[in-house]
Amino acid sequence: HFRYFLLRVSRAPSRGHFLHGPYPATHFGPKACVLPNPTSVMHIQDPASQRLTWSKPPLNVLVIRKIRDETLLEPFKELCRFLVEEKHLMVYVEKKVVDDGSLMTDDSFSAIRNQLCTFREGYDDISDRIDLIICLGGDGTLLYASSLFQGSVPPVMAFHLGSLGFLTPFKFESFKTEVDKVFEGNAAIILRSRLKVKVVKGMFQRNEQLFSPQENGIVLNEVVVDRGPSSYLSNVDLYLDGRLITSVLGDGVIVSTPTGSTAYAAAAGASMIHPNVPAIMVTPICPHSLSFRPIVVPAGVELMITLSPDARNTAWVSFDGRKREEIQHGDSIKITTSCFPVPSICCHDLVYDWFDSLAQCLHWNIRKKQTRLTDASDSSETEN
Amino acid sequence: HFRYFLLRVSRAPSRGHFLHGPYPATHFGPKACVLPNPTSVMHIQDPASQRLTWSKPPLNVLVIRKIRDETLLEPFKELCRFLVEEKHLMVYVEKKVVDDGSLMTDDSFSAIRNQLCTFREGYDDISDRIDLIICLGGDGTLLYASSLFQGSVPPVMAFHLGSLGFLTPFKFESFKTEVDKVFEGNAAIILRSRLKVKVVKGMFQRNEQLFSPQENGIVLNEVVVDRGPSSYLSNVDLYLDGRLITSVLGDGVIVSTPTGSTAYAAAAGASMIHPNVPAIMVTPICPHSLSFRPIVVPAGVELMITLSPDARNTAWVSFDGRKREEIQHGDSIKITTSCFPVPSICCHDLVYDWFDSLAQCLHWNIRKKQTRLTDASDSSETEN
Amino acid sequence: HFRYFLLRVSRAPSRGHFLHGPYPATHFGPKACVLPNPTSVMHIQDPASQRLTWSKPPLNVLVIRKIRDETLLEPFKELCRFLVEEKHLMVYVEKKVVDDGSLMTDDSFSAIRNQLCTFREGYDDISDRIDLIICLGGDGTLLYASSLFQGSVPPVMAFHLGSLGFLTPFKFESFKTEVDKVFEGNAAIILRSRLKVKVVKGMFQRNEQLFSPQENGIVLNEVVVDRGPSSYLSNVDLYLDGRLITSVLGDGVIVSTPTGSTAYAAAAGASMIHPNVPAIMVTPICPHSLSFRPIVVPAGVELMITLSPDARNTAWVSFDGRKREEIQHGDSIKITTSCFPVPSICCHDLVYDWFDSLAQCLHWNIRKKQTRLTDASDSSETEN
Amino acid sequence: HFRYFLLRVSRAPSRGHFLHGPYPATHFGPKACVLPNPTSVMHIQDPASQRLTWSKPPLNVLVIRKIRDETLLEPFKELCRFLVEEKHLMVYVEKKVVDDGSLMTDDSFSAIRNQLCTFREGYDDISDRIDLIICLGGDGTLLYASSLFQGSVPPVMAFHLGSLGFLTPFKFESFKTEVDKVFEGNAAIILRSRLKVKVVKGMFQRNEQLFSPQENGIVLNEVVVDRGPSSYLSNVDLYLDGRLITSVLGDGVIVSTPTGSTAYAAAAGASMIHPNVPAIMVTPICPHSLSFRPIVVPAGVELMITLSPDARNTAWVSFDGRKREEIQHGDSIKITTSCFPVPSICCHDLVYDWFDSLAQCLHWNIRKKQTRLTDASDSSETEN
Repeated sequence: HFRYFLLRVSRAPSRGHFLHGPYPATHFGPKACVLPNPTSVMHIQDPASQRLTWSKPPLNVLVIRKIRDETLLEPFKELCRFLVEEKHLMVYVEKKVVDDGSLMTDDSFSAIRNQLCTFREGYDDISDRIDLIICLGGDGTLLYASSLFQGSVPPVMAFHLGSLGFLTPFKFESFKTEVDKVFEGNAAIILRSRLKVKVVKGMFQRNEQLFSPQENGIVLNEVVVDRGPSSYLSNVDLYLDGRLITSVLGDGVIVSTPTGSTAYAAAAGASMIHPNVPAIMVTPICPHSLSFRPIVVPAGVELMITLSPDARNTAWVSFDGRKREEIQHGDSIKITTSCFPVPSICCHDLVYDWFDSLAQCLHWNIRKKQTRLTDASDSSETEN
Repeated sequence: HFRYFLLRVSRAPSRGHFLHGPYPATHFGPKACVLPNPTSVMHIQDPASQRLTWSKPPLNVLVIRKIRDETLLEPFKELCRFLVEEKHLMVYVEKKVVDDGSLMTDDSFSAIRNQLCTFREGYDDISDRIDLIICLGGDGTLLYASSLFQGSVPPVMAFHLGSLGFLTPFKFESFKTEVDKVFEGNAAIILRSRLKVKVVKGMFQRNEQLFSPQENGIVLNEVVVDRGPSSYLSNVDLYLDGRLITSVLGDGVIVSTPTGSTAYAAAAGASMIHPNVPAIMVTPICPHSLSFRPIVVPAGVELMITLSPDARNTAWVSFDGRKREEIQHGDSIKITTSCFPVPSICCHDLVYDWFDSLAQCLHWNIRKKQTRLTDASDSSETEN
Repeated sequence: HFRYFLLRVSRAPSRGHFLHGPYPATHFGPKACVLPNPTSVMHIQDPASQRLTWSKPPLNVLVIRKIRDETLLEPFKELCRFLVEEKHLMVYVEKKVVDDGSLMTDDSFSAIRNQLCTFREGYDDISDRIDLIICLGGDGTLLYASSLFQGSVPPVMAFHLGSLGFLTPFKFESFKTEVDKVFEGNAAIILRSRLKVKVVKGMFQRNEQLFSPQENGIVLNEVVVDRGPSSYLSNVDLYLDGRLITSVLGDGVIVSTPTGSTAYAAAAGASMIHPNVPAIMVTPICPHSLSFRPIVVPAGVELMITLSPDARNTAWVSFDGRKREEIQHGDSIKITTSCFPVPSICCHDLVYDWFDSLAQCLHWNIRKKQTRLTDASDSSETEN
Repeated sequence: HFRYFLLRVSRAPSRGHFLHGPYPATHFGPKACVLPNPTSVMHIQDPASQRLTWSKPPLNVLVIRKIRDETLLEPFKELCRFLVEEKHLMVYVEKKVVDDGSLMTDDSFSAIRNQLCTFREGYDDISDRIDLIICLGGDGTLLYASSLFQGSVPPVMAFHLGSLGFLTPFKFESFKTEVDKVFEGNAAIILRSRLKVKVVKGMFQRNEQLFSPQENGIVLNEVVVDRGPSSYLSNVDLYLDGRLITSVLGDGVIVSTPTGSTAYAAAAGASMIHPNVPAIMVTPICPHSLSFRPIVVPAGVELMITLSPDARNTAWVSFDGRKREEIQHGDSIKITTSCFPVPSICCHDLVYDWFDSLAQCLHWNIRKKQTRLTDASDSSETEN
């Protein structure tokens, strides 16, 4: 009873003002209504009003930079110096970044360098220790950051150097001011949903096994199932909540988050989805069917992909473009929305940043100003 | 404080089980969290668990049928007879349906006919009187039903006769059993979101007017802004939450609900969205730009469309394919998600019904079984 | 026999060097060959080697300019002055261009103005009198020029002012030099194929008529059959060489030349065809079928379009975006490649000009340099 | 002079009746014409009138069947028996087909089996010995047949068993009658153009080499350059007649014949081209650019593909889906139309066969009869 009351109180003033959409009415005409079911009520804070705050001042910062890109060397040093000397933070950096040749021989940086905490991917687990992630470089740095945190992800602040990325909204030029603002709290954030992926090996055919080995992964962009190094088509079955939905015959299939809809899925022809839409996108790659249009399903479904019974070849799965592994008959890939999104700090806000990226990264609907495709309305004679 | 506690209680058992997606975590790493803002919390019942119930037994039923389709005549009479004589309901029918020639001359139907309540569109408002809508015919009957109820919509039960439609999941053959089941309550429903459209005339240029005339509409499929009867391109500006997003130069633009994504938007090349995804789709119609891909934005935004300042021609707006009207410089069309969805009764459930329609209505990914596009893997020689 | 000999002589050195493709072999294995049929042999000059020449010096020049574009006024005057005073040519201009307000009141131009020959579209036939056409403005000027010459078309030299068009390759800046070069002869030309269209009215149903009224048209870009001012779908049948190929249910269908493939057809999703490919393109407009991909057929076929027998509405046909007219049941539209192409003078050559336009007019494959869609290969970690 | 006369004589009656299109006019207005250049005149026999004839009765027949498909075993034996015993022909079969297990143990077939000539791919060259090829099975058999004949290809007669293929128009049921008809001569044929591919290794960088090793190939469907087994994007440059046209960043690029336009290129989104259009199609595979539309260029151009200078990974080239090989910096792939097409015997004619395949193999524009996407015209109310 009490809960119900709260519901009505908070609903009243907010209709239509949530980014998520308005509360849908629950009474339909004079006599019908949705059967109330309190255990199935979700309480979601309006994504547009989400602000980042700190329960304690952040202390441990993970800095991720793209290696082998010399242009990032100076910015990286500047950033570390600022974080260590001015902000007095504990800075974590991957070992191979610190061991980079030109960095080791730079004496002026050695004092800072000695204060950095290093870790090695796959050996040292820092996932419960980091308060803030700062990325330097392309969108790939964020995908990498995401892969380090399979559970809760600390807030991510991502800087681009040359040109804006979908995932790297901040300009490096004013990094000190921007970092200070984030430390103060109240930054706008966008929760980028991720997909939890479970690869179950040999459930059906290799039943001599006592237990099914399985692997888990989590992706920010997409899971791809494709023909991998094989030159034969992949042929996989797609299930949704346990039901066979369709078979994919072609180069493969992409299951992506809205964040991933502007990545590989866009290249494969999908529509582009704002990262705040709670959805999962399924996009075929070069399907051998003229009518296989991409589809968008609710974020809460569970998808499963297996080899089709009549598939003559294996398929390969990869996670955000990494860790390709082979899928055999009897294996299955289960995909569902994770409850651990990546809290990505916005430069402006979650609508502006996205459209800015669409224009700058993808040249979305860019065309010659005031010119069109050849059309007769350019002709003097066609204007009445 | 108290409210916050409740939130955590109800969140715990349900993670990952909502069709909407799991609750996203609100704590990020050891020290960051979303700033709690109780006034911006939404409480949404899981769409997958929504069941229809009746506060009182339904009494007034609106029957909508496609006219000028003779094959619907007998089913219509059968249905009316059942509702009136067996179920003892008050049956509302549009006057022109009842006045149909062959119906008037059928003596065996006259007793029933005399008990039907008739109304005329645009004259008689029955929108607060109807407990249940029953549709007979194509998807258009549901679009029409939607247009009669700009506010709260009674539950809709839609029968197809020949072939399944996206909006007409029930077979007529077993209509009595199906209607009985719905009356009993507990039917699965899908809340199909609608778009509220406001056309504001001459806000800017015709300021001699004391007040802006405006019209409102509500659509279940889509609002289309196009060149109408003109043979010139339309050139309109698209705003999102007050910001200019892009200009559309081409045949027009479609703003559609997920329900509408399988209608005109699909014809214009959009990906197809399950009706439970809280989103709005924007699809250009034959855009004069190679890079104008359709986009999907959160359901809670407000879109606005105006003529571009340099547009040389007017544009036309229409609502679910009806009521086309001209848009001049200075007019604006505001579009946002309505809080009055159409509660559409499912035949199976909201996932099955959709994929069934994709296959049957759109032949989605239908291809020749076990055959592919010409490929070399058919060749004996390629199979090492 | 003799002819066959010639064939072999001229074939020998040229294999593989024609823009049209190499001569296909006519002997297949040791014993098979194409049955020789001299009456069906075509003799085509290699498009890449086509050069314009003059049998006599050109004297009559038609100048076409876009009206209502003030920026064209000065260039137009400059051009006329050059042609009249320096080249001593007879210059034809449409009457309404000459009667343009600012032109009439310009005393310094009146001497030139008095020497211009004027004509009115639809009244004065100048089609057998013009040696060269010079266009000033957008691509529409060329479409208009094409419409004036239903038969043989004089060479066309087209200048753009602001920005390059597909049909207007020359910069106006150096117009004197360019015109002089063309007068000298030897300019590279591209023969842009056109479509001959015949609309036959009421052949079947209105057989009380003694003869079928018919109209002819010729288009450089495309014939469009669509729903016109109607808000209902069009439903037309498409025949190829007398055989029913498919039915088009949707907004309409575009039958275009390769030149037109970069115009409306591109907006409707077609692939883009170089104007030298002898082909006709058929592109549906928002078809109500996921599998209706555009097709390209050989230039020599005859297409016919009629309303489908079960079409509930009429359709409308238009020619290069002009002269829309209604199509009823029983009418038919016959379309075939005309033998009167538009000889369009190239600025560079017929390959360079086209790719230059693709890039500049359509931003074909323009993307952010050295950036990609979000992909993991940007990450330091993904590079082994 | 004489030649010119011939040209005019044969041109006169045939305007507009060639499948290739009409002869374009060569005089433009009163004074302009194409500069005649007899050495660049092509003499092409109208494709629609091409008939197969035999200089001597065919004697050597190559039979190709898909192996590992048991359903083909009986038809294969039937066909061989017919060719050997009834037609008294020399029948060539690949060794591994004859050595197939169930064939070897079939005593009733051993007499026939002993009369078959066998050969091994890559060892025995039979390319100058075969008068006719008969294929049994999928389209892949024809691709394989094509690969055996890099130069002149004997006529191919292709049978499907289960379902029609683009390249296998004949039903097996009536194979005796069909074969007899072909032997009589006068069968309609379609010359399917092929692409000649030259892979030049290390021209630029490895100049320590005395000569460039190179390989040649010929394809009926397509050359694909893609990322092969690599999980990184390919980044290649595309040249046309020596000029850099564009760079392809994505999964790869397909260069296909019109025959190949309904194969992998269709899966990648290309329009579909009738095999008689003299053209080459360039289709990107999942390009990282929203505006990279496929293009169609004249058959006579030479395309060249190299790794882009800034490509960080190699690419892979394959030929009709076979023989993948790696492409390094400095290598180049040159592609041009071969003058040795595949003369493919038509079942009906070259137009009918193609549209039949489009419908049956690709379900081109198949939709629910008399149903449409949800549209308001289904509503009683929208019909005035």
